[in-house]
Amino acid sequence: MKELRDVKDLSMDTGVQQMLVKARNEGIDTAFDRASKMTRCGFGSTGVCCKHCLEGPCRIAPGGKGPQAGICGSNVDTIVARNFLVNITEGAASHAEHAREVAHAILEVAEGKAPYTIQDEEKLKSIAEGLGLVTEGKNINQLAREVAHKALEDFQKQHGTMNWLKLRGQAKSIENWEKLGLLPVNAHLEIAKAMARTVMGGDADPANLLLGAVTMGLVDGFAGLHMSTDLQDVLFGTPRAVKAKYRLGVIREEMVNLSVHGHIPLLAEKVVEWAGKLTDKAKEAGAQGINVVGVCCSGNELLMRKGVPVATNYASQEMPILTGALEAMVVDIQCIMPGIQTVASCYHTEIITTLPYAKIAGATHVEFTTERADEAAREIVMRAINNFKKRDPKKINIPQEVTEAYAGFSVEQIVEALKAVNAVDPLKPLVEAIANGEILGAVALVGCTNPRVKQDSGNVALVKELIKNNVLVVATGCAAHSLGKFGLLSPDGLKYAGDSLRNILTVIGQANGLPALPPALHMGSCVDNSRVADLLTALANYLGVAIKDLPVAGSCPETHHPKALSIGTFFIANGVDVHVGVDPQVSGSALVVNVLTSDKENFPVTTDGLFGGKLIYEEDPVKAAEIILNRIKMKRQALGLN
Amino acid sequence: MKELRDVKDLSMDTGVQQMLVKARNEGIDTAFDRASKMTRCGFGSTGVCCKHCLEGPCRIAPGGKGPQAGICGSNVDTIVARNFLVNITEGAASHAEHAREVAHAILEVAEGKAPYTIQDEEKLKSIAEGLGLVTEGKNINQLAREVAHKALEDFQKQHGTMNWLKLRGQAKSIENWEKLGLLPVNAHLEIAKAMARTVMGGDADPANLLLGAVTMGLVDGFAGLHMSTDLQDVLFGTPRAVKAKYRLGVIREEMVNLSVHGHIPLLAEKVVEWAGKLTDKAKEAGAQGINVVGVCCSGNELLMRKGVPVATNYASQEMPILTGALEAMVVDIQCIMPGIQTVASCYHTEIITTLPYAKIAGATHVEFTTERADEAAREIVMRAINNFKKRDPKKINIPQEVTEAYAGFSVEQIVEALKAVNAVDPLKPLVEAIANGEILGAVALVGCTNPRVKQDSGNVALVKELIKNNVLVVATGCAAHSLGKFGLLSPDGLKYAGDSLRNILTVIGQANGLPALPPALHMGSCVDNSRVADLLTALANYLGVAIKDLPVAGSCPETHHPKALSIGTFFIANGVDVHVGVDPQVSGSALVVNVLTSDKENFPVTTDGLFGGKLIYEEDPVKAAEIILNRIKMKRQALGLN
Repeated sequence: MKELRDVKDLSMDTGVQQMLVKARNEGIDTAFDRASKMTRCGFGSTGVCCKHCLEGPCRIAPGGKGPQAGICGSNVDTIVARNFLVNITEGAASHAEHAREVAHAILEVAEGKAPYTIQDEEKLKSIAEGLGLVTEGKNINQLAREVAHKALEDFQKQHGTMNWLKLRGQAKSIENWEKLGLLPVNAHLEIAKAMARTVMGGDADPANLLLGAVTMGLVDGFAGLHMSTDLQDVLFGTPRAVKAKYRLGVIREEMVNLSVHGHIPLLAEKVVEWAGKLTDKAKEAGAQGINVVGVCCSGNELLMRKGVPVATNYASQEMPILTGALEAMVVDIQCIMPGIQTVASCYHTEIITTLPYAKIAGATHVEFTTERADEAAREIVMRAINNFKKRDPKKINIPQEVTEAYAGFSVEQIVEALKAVNAVDPLKPLVEAIANGEILGAVALVGCTNPRVKQDSGNVALVKELIKNNVLVVATGCAAHSLGKFGLLSPDGLKYAGDSLRNILTVIGQANGLPALPPALHMGSCVDNSRVADLLTALANYLGVAIKDLPVAGSCPETHHPKALSIGTFFIANGVDVHVGVDPQVSGSALVVNVLTSDKENFPVTTDGLFGGKLIYEEDPVKAAEIILNRIKMKRQALGLN
Repeated sequence: MKELRDVKDLSMDTGVQQMLVKARNEGIDTAFDRASKMTRCGFGSTGVCCKHCLEGPCRIAPGGKGPQAGICGSNVDTIVARNFLVNITEGAASHAEHAREVAHAILEVAEGKAPYTIQDEEKLKSIAEGLGLVTEGKNINQLAREVAHKALEDFQKQHGTMNWLKLRGQAKSIENWEKLGLLPVNAHLEIAKAMARTVMGGDADPANLLLGAVTMGLVDGFAGLHMSTDLQDVLFGTPRAVKAKYRLGVIREEMVNLSVHGHIPLLAEKVVEWAGKLTDKAKEAGAQGINVVGVCCSGNELLMRKGVPVATNYASQEMPILTGALEAMVVDIQCIMPGIQTVASCYHTEIITTLPYAKIAGATHVEFTTERADEAAREIVMRAINNFKKRDPKKINIPQEVTEAYAGFSVEQIVEALKAVNAVDPLKPLVEAIANGEILGAVALVGCTNPRVKQDSGNVALVKELIKNNVLVVATGCAAHSLGKFGLLSPDGLKYAGDSLRNILTVIGQANGLPALPPALHMGSCVDNSRVADLLTALANYLGVAIKDLPVAGSCPETHHPKALSIGTFFIANGVDVHVGVDPQVSGSALVVNVLTSDKENFPVTTDGLFGGKLIYEEDPVKAAEIILNRIKMKRQALGLN
């Protein structure tokens, strides 16, 4: 078995390091230590292992002396491309299921069956109009019902193209996808078809499989990201700038601490609501109140709309439990490590699962449906309160560091902030700054942390390098949390920025009554990468160009989840370069690597050539920044900018 | 690299052996030889390898010294159960896509958009009535349209239960599934949900994941098997007993030989039609005519309805090309080895793919849609004709063996045959024979051949053992082809049967003007396992018991495709024991193995206890038969039969 690494090499976050030492002292395994111990398979990690039937598994050592085809005759290109499509399908299915849950919730709210109130009527109306619905003379519930039905059609229709793609896709992108025959009909149909095509004896053409992955990327982007964000904004309000706190120090010894982890705000919002309502019960139990803290993207949703503090991000999700002061962690779906239950079993913490299709053996299950959201949320909060007295004081050890951060930068909020500079033509100052080079370009920092990578280090290092070069950074997901923990979501972080970027962010910030905007604008959860796409669409439309022409890129330095790959595929389909800092497990096929990563000049068929965006794989964040900067400069040049 | 095995150890079929020798002499790789060379991975083949995120792959050696959990904390039970659910989802997605294609075809036919004619109006009407549609006063197209819409609802509805489940499920089974909360809403929704639950950080409860696999089994059974068979019978006619030929000897040197391979008869039927229409063109090219031969389940569909000869089954699908006399092999989806293209590239044979989501690099692609079915089928047949002259006479070597077989045993045909014995109460003689022990029970031989297993040997040996013990055998899929090749679909095969079974099959056969019925009744393709379920439902309803009470089982001795596992899960959900002769890749988890395979007395939660049926894994077909016979006797005993 391999040696454990020094905790300083596992995370930049000193609070996480402190908890890792505590875990080791208590003989508790964590994801970081399991990552050190696990030996990776050379076949699986390069994508050349095929497990699609009972003849196999078949494994190909590319160029080696062993068989160069699986038993059925699939060569390494087919195997790698097929595995890649499966990964993208997993990501897209996750986001589609998220969006569909929210669409059903809106429908139930409209029909008076679920205890939520629509918060952003204006956005609802604008979506309805975008979908071609008649809005005049309809009350809010009628409109919500019609919008929900339009959303659900994207899981039902048997012909045509997904409504949300037509609603949110940029015209020039859509034109390209249509020309290539990639437009998805409905999300579930395409997911099922992807499963049917990746099955044994299905699609064996690597190029065709990779085009299938692009369709899956569109499913992810439109029936996942965009639909989720749009409907969540309608239901819970469109985020506006908000100040909040980060790091494990947000857990408070004197309070009942309840962390919310997962992705869909239907649960998270109700937990916050009931935490507020049950403060007296917490006081009766001896606490000063109830402290809800966020983890992962549920954390982002609550941070963006309510300023709820964020305890930590993905790779360190077990750490809040190790403080000994967490009464409960309630989860819904995606990125939930089963390891939390193992750690919790050494503490008084109760892990509470909420969805029938996402349970953890040993955890408490409180079924959460929108119809009985109040009962479920009440029960969850009461469980946390009841656990307060079960704490073992000897086990309590809460890291003290806390950082401040701004979040809440929806497109609407960004445009509003820009209006303080130019009320009539708000995008103008931004576009001019890009045009004259004061802002070199824009990069979205997205995605994950990964226990195999020193936590936060890639996300932070890459962003520092980019802002130093006057690149405007927006951020989402657990990557945004990395920035929050290390001061890059605060105006203080401007000390790392180049002069011209700092000046502009200071001007815009001061026009809005702040000392400055932070160097990275937190745009939300992983599904809120839709906001990034909306911003790019707005800029491209303003300039009359395609998104692929913009001097922008996406980057996910600490990639862990297939969702990051499906989101990335969505952006590549739009012509945006996407960097990943972790091997996307395709290196076994030179063909697949070339299609995804080569410049169009260097290989006959590339995503660069077909869409204008390519995949960049580089583990070193500084080198990655350099590659991104070069691509941005290339796109600037093509636009005639210096 | 491993040694190649003697061809006698690769297949029972001497024609296949002959072609394997030819392939080796010509330096051509085949699936059988690749199977000999491929080293299986001990992790993957026991289900303990997890590839669901970029942290891994994580591999657990159960009980070993290495890590006992993946990086996220998933233990071996979670990993194995999750992989199993993925396999079942792959199978179900394949069958659902098949059914949906046929449902769309019916709709297009009803709307006059596709050049097919509804062949079985009576079955259409009976299905419509079963679905609760008003049939009176509606013409055939109106009815077809309404039935098609009901079918498509099973890929669209957001609430309730799949229509086809209510149409075809046995009441007592449905009651059990409802009690356990397993009823699927719509096929695509459940497939997408299964993908979302098996994704990283999704469902981590092995028991819950296995229940999810049962829901997938129901998707497979009803929105896959039953819907496909029902609608194919409507469109192409319900099969009736037919006599046909088997083995590579059906390829004829003097003819243009065109093999049809895959699953959906929409293509296969049209190819046969156009082969008939273009005979003159073949003669112009110097051939005596056009000889369409079947491979795999497209072969079964054409065999059942048209008596088209069958060249070979799954594992030997490359062999027809090696005869040097095959002009083209046209394929649609599933079980298509990419290896056929590699072999074809050494011959004049043209591989023709037909569906946009199932291509093979290097093959010809002729896009087949129902709307342009005639143009596509014409082009395909013409391509075969044009290839006739490209033959290399030196390479021609056609094995001469041919066997005769009966097929076409739909439930309707079986009931009709029984009516010749008892016109008023046709099931009575069969049920009485079971009750008095003349027939011990019934077993469906289903599924595949697998290049790692000596071809046909398991299928044939198991059936001989069963019929010797007076078990009535029905057969489907490539397993039925094994029986066909070795005389077990012919009355001659009765020499292997026990006396009482032989007597009964002779009585029924003679009442129908035949010397006897064959010892195994060929019920069709893999989707036609629905016919097996229909037969069981009829018997159970007749007796007033649940399917799980019947002395019956299913067996798939040479399992290769995940579809076999999803079909098996459907039958287990109905309470039917299912034997597999190849490791279903779950052995890494004692929990999963116990849930699936233990008797209900021996483990707290088992499929045996929940549904009344269990998985039997036994590689030796004779031992497997013994286990099956014991379970049948046990079920007889529970029914009060000796």
